[in-house]
Parts: sequence; structure tokens; C-alpha cells
Amino acid sequence: MERMLDPAVADVRRAVREALAPFADSGARVLVALSGGADSLALAAAAAHEAPKVGLEVVSATIDHGLQDGSADVAERAAAQAREFGIRTARVERVEVGTAGGPEAAAREARYAALRRIAAEEDAAAVLVGHTLDDQAETVLLGLARGSGSASLSGMSPHALDGAGLAWIRPLLALRRATTASFCTASGIDAWRDPHNVDERFSRVRVRERVLPVLEDELGPGIAEALWRTAEQLREDEDAFADMIEETIEDIVEHAEAGIAVSVAALGANPPSLRHRIIRHVVDAEFGVSLSRAQTLEVARLVTDWRGQGPIDLPGCQASRRGGLITFSAERS
Amino acid sequence: MERMLDPAVADVRRAVREALAPFADSGARVLVALSGGADSLALAAAAAHEAPKVGLEVVSATIDHGLQDGSADVAERAAAQAREFGIRTARVERVEVGTAGGPEAAAREARYAALRRIAAEEDAAAVLVGHTLDDQAETVLLGLARGSGSASLSGMSPHALDGAGLAWIRPLLALRRATTASFCTASGIDAWRDPHNVDERFSRVRVRERVLPVLEDELGPGIAEALWRTAEQLREDEDAFADMIEETIEDIVEHAEAGIAVSVAALGANPPSLRHRIIRHVVDAEFGVSLSRAQTLEVARLVTDWRGQGPIDLPGCQASRRGGLITFSAERS
Repeated sequence: MERMLDPAVADVRRAVREALAPFADSGARVLVALSGGADSLALAAAAAHEAPKVGLEVVSATIDHGLQDGSADVAERAAAQAREFGIRTARVERVEVGTAGGPEAAAREARYAALRRIAAEEDAAAVLVGHTLDDQAETVLLGLARGSGSASLSGMSPHALDGAGLAWIRPLLALRRATTASFCTASGIDAWRDPHNVDERFSRVRVRERVLPVLEDELGPGIAEALWRTAEQLREDEDAFADMIEETIEDIVEHAEAGIAVSVAALGANPPSLRHRIIRHVVDAEFGVSLSRAQTLEVARLVTDWRGQGPIDLPGCQASRRGGLITFSAERS
Repeated sequence: MERMLDPAVADVRRAVREALAPFADSGARVLVALSGGADSLALAAAAAHEAPKVGLEVVSATIDHGLQDGSADVAERAAAQAREFGIRTARVERVEVGTAGGPEAAAREARYAALRRIAAEEDAAAVLVGHTLDDQAETVLLGLARGSGSASLSGMSPHALDGAGLAWIRPLLALRRATTASFCTASGIDAWRDPHNVDERFSRVRVRERVLPVLEDELGPGIAEALWRTAEQLREDEDAFADMIEETIEDIVEHAEAGIAVSVAALGANPPSLRHRIIRHVVDAEFGVSLSRAQTLEVARLVTDWRGQGPIDLPGCQASRRGGLITFSAERS
């Protein structure tokens, strides 16, 4: 008689199966980003189980950030676990973490750069990342503190293509962290507990340990799921606006020697939500600068509240209205 | 020598002046919703100061919900303060609060119904309501717990027209509660402290007293402003989608005897954000039912994942795909 499949194992396997379906029978390789924690171990084990059934090969990569004592051992242990799951290519990569943007951002930057490189070397079609519903809820709350609308509240994407055509997939994004923990327990997998996950110097840890429990207590249970649903819906909105901008942007901008210009009439004809996104999009694309809400509104007033204002100084550029155009230029006039 | 104007008084007056500007020299009457708390007293005092300068007359209405001992005295005292500000018509209205939707919702319902009626009786063009940035931040957090995207996170509108053409305006929505308190102190106005404002049976009070302080501590100061900015941006998004739906809805729906039908092709051609909003809009308009996210997605799958599914039971109606239409009907087929 076959043993009953643990419900958590069934849930994780189903989620991974659905995530792999678009690649079925393509013979592709998929790369699992494996930290050694419960989430990514469950992901790797389920991927090793599901991928061969649809003709895919799993490889794994464990990034050693070199930030904690014994991090090399932790990474080697995770790779050894991957090999036990049947993943033949289980790589460990040591990276140098910089300082730009703070320790969390720098570690993340180094990790994703390494994963991109390894995916290219291994000719992987997709990278599977082990973020869960709980991670998504934390990301939404961290975005809420930034207060920049749906762009900062839409959280992490369940599946996205990057510029190089590589798919980034989060199969576990609709599952609770408790499910991956149960998966590991049921499967006899001993997961690593990252001390950074309880280090309250990190804002994400404070959100997890202090903010979410208070929200649960005061606003009722189900807050993590509510944050997850919010992210899902706001991501849909953000995608729709991105498509609208992509459809119209080339018709309303003019490239000039000193920068880029947008038609006042077109900005004026669009509703505020699109007008503000077009302004931010143009400045970001041309100068690599992310405008704040206040800066964006000041530029918009050149369209909606024109009283002959002078040029507006922005980070990295200047905005001014000349004739029927709002011109963004790197040079000060 | 003229006394220096207190900065809080200047801020509140400026906000009220800007809110009244669209009505300037129209000879209109504006109705201030006056509870007797600091926010609405500051609003009433500033309106009484600013309105005559632009040819407007202020009237006030204080609603006695009859829910607390002495509520009639509190209301009469607020009206007396309004008369001291120079508001000649300062009405007090006793309402009967029902029970539908819980005590907060029932009181709100009764209050707004009374304000609508009084506005009509007084021939007011606008109702001014004293909500502040802090109220908006609380509203966003309460919406977050519901988890239904920008509709629940976009908070209260700074200005909106209702079906009867009455403008509902919140002049203080960009100001902190501390500013209205300072206004009252500087103006020698003794504000009523509603015991309900510290009664932790109310979820809004728990958000104010317990949730927001934890968010400030853990995510840094400025969280109320961040929530306010989020509401502002999500409201823009929501307005843009509402306009898009209004522009297309009549072209894609067909009214039938048993209900209403929407073109499968049109739903399929729209991005998910609009498809889901159209489904919710149609069901709400036809049956007065607000679909959940899960229900909306199930209906959408009749378009995006059609495998010959049977009719879907929804609250108050049923959705089914027949030919090129998704039909919503009250009768069970």
C-alpha cells in the first residue's frame, strides 16, 4: 500500500508542477536558487521530483555571500542536500558583497548577478526562487512605508522575463511559509535557520516579527493573505498601465540632442495616473532617475497649471516647458 | 501692530480657501459637518473666516447620534461654538441609528443620510467634512486588511460629486491632526473629546492607538504620510480605470430579460485589471452585489480558461458562458 502523501508535500509539488508546465517537454534546464533554508529546500526537492516527469533538468545554485562565519559550510551542505534530491549539478558560488544601498540591497544585488551568470553558463531557461506568500506580505508592508503607490505595493512577480529572456519564477508565492516547513518535516529534510532571519537590524525581520503579528492581532487573522491579494491586484494594474505606456510612448516623445521631450497636449489628454507614469517613465528611461511623487507632481503642473514657471531642477536633469513640449535635459539652461 | 498668525491657523485657512475656490463668487451655501471635535471645529472656524471673502455662506450641521449619554448637550455646544464663529445657521439634528453592518457603519449611514437631507434643505452646493491625513492613513490600513486592491486602499476622496450633484469636500485631508489641534489651541477653541475615539472596541481606534505607532517605530517615521501618498496615487489609478470602463461599457454589454451579458471577445481583449473590474462593475450595477476577488477570478476563467465549465453560482446571480457572451442572470438555469 502506498503511503499517503503529506498535504504540504502535495501542495508544494502541485505549485512547482504548475510553474514548470509552460516549459514541459522543451528539454530545458531550470535553475533553483537554493539558500539552504526551508523554502528553497522544499522548492529544490519538489523541482527534482517534478521536472524529470516533463523532460526538464534541474540544476541548483547556492550563493555563499561570505557574510557569516561558516557560510561556506552552510552552502556546501545545501548543495549536498540538493544532490540527495537527485540534482546532479548543484553549484556553490562565492560572491563579493559590496556596500551600495545598504547590506540587504548589496547582498541581493550580488546574489542576483551571480544567479544571472550561472543561468547563462548552465543555459537555463528559468530561475526558480523560493519566495512564499509570507515574503510577499512582508514586501508589501515594506513598500507601504515608501508610499509610492501600486509600483511599491505590487510586491514580487510570480513570473517575469528579464531583458536577457530569462524567466524568473516564484512557484511558492501563493503558499504559506508554514507549508514549506511542513514539507521539510514530512520529507525528513533538515533546513538551515539563517541567523539573519531573526536579526532585528533588518527591516524585513522587524516587519515579520513585530509588525505582522500586531496587524494580525488588531485587524483580524488573514492579514498576510490580504496583503498577498493586494499585491496581486496592484500588479495587474501596474502591468496594464505599463502596456498603455508602451503602446503610446513612441508617439508622444521626441528625442533631442540634450535629452528628451514629451508633448504637452498628450500629457494633458491623459488622466493623472497615466500622465504621472509617463513623466516618471521618460525620466527613468533617459536619465536612470526615479522621481519622487512630489517631483513628478511639480513637472505635471507644467502641463495642468501652467503659469509660465521656470525650469524645474530634478536629480540628474531639468524639466522645462517650451512651446508645446515638456523638455527634459541633462544640461542646465 | 497685527498679531502674527499662528502657522496652524494659516495652514487650515489656506486649505479651506483652496477648497472653496471653485465656488468663489457663486453665492452658494456650503454646509460644514460639525461633530464638535477639534478637526471639524477648526474646519468650521476657518470656513466661517474664509467663505464671506469669496461671497459664500456657511451653514453647519451637528448630528446627534443619540448613542452616548449627554450627546444632545455635546451637539448643542458645538452649534453654539459655530454661532460664535459667525455661522448664523448652525443646526442640530437627532438621528436614529440602525444596526445594519455594525455600530460604526450604522452611525455613519445615519449621519451621511442626515447631511444629504440637510444639504438639500439648505440648498448647499457642497458639504465640507473634517477628515485629516491621519484619518486617511487609518482608512488605508483598514482597507489593507480587506485586501481588495486599489479600491480598498484609495481611501477617502478629497472631493467628489454624488449622484444628486452635491460636492463632498475634505479640505483638511492633507493636514495632520496635530495641526487642527494647534488651530484650536491657538484660537482658544475648546474641542470635545469623543470617548469613542479612544474606545478600543472600534477597529479604527485600534489602528490609531496600536497599529500606526508600531509601524512608525519599525518602519521609520513618516508612515502616515506614506499611507496618505499611497491613497492619493491609488485613487488616481482607480479613477482612470473607472473612466475607461465608463467609455466602453455600453459597447460591450447587452441587456437581456433575465439579466445582463458581456461580450467574451471584449473581456478577452482587455488586460486582467480591466477584465476583472468590468466583471465586478456589471454585477454590482445589475444586482447590487460586490464580488470577492476569488469569485471575480472564477468568472474570468470562463473567458481565459474555457473548458466548458457549468454555470457559476454567485451571491444574487449566476454567471454562465453561452456562445460569445458571459451572461449574468438572477434566475437559476
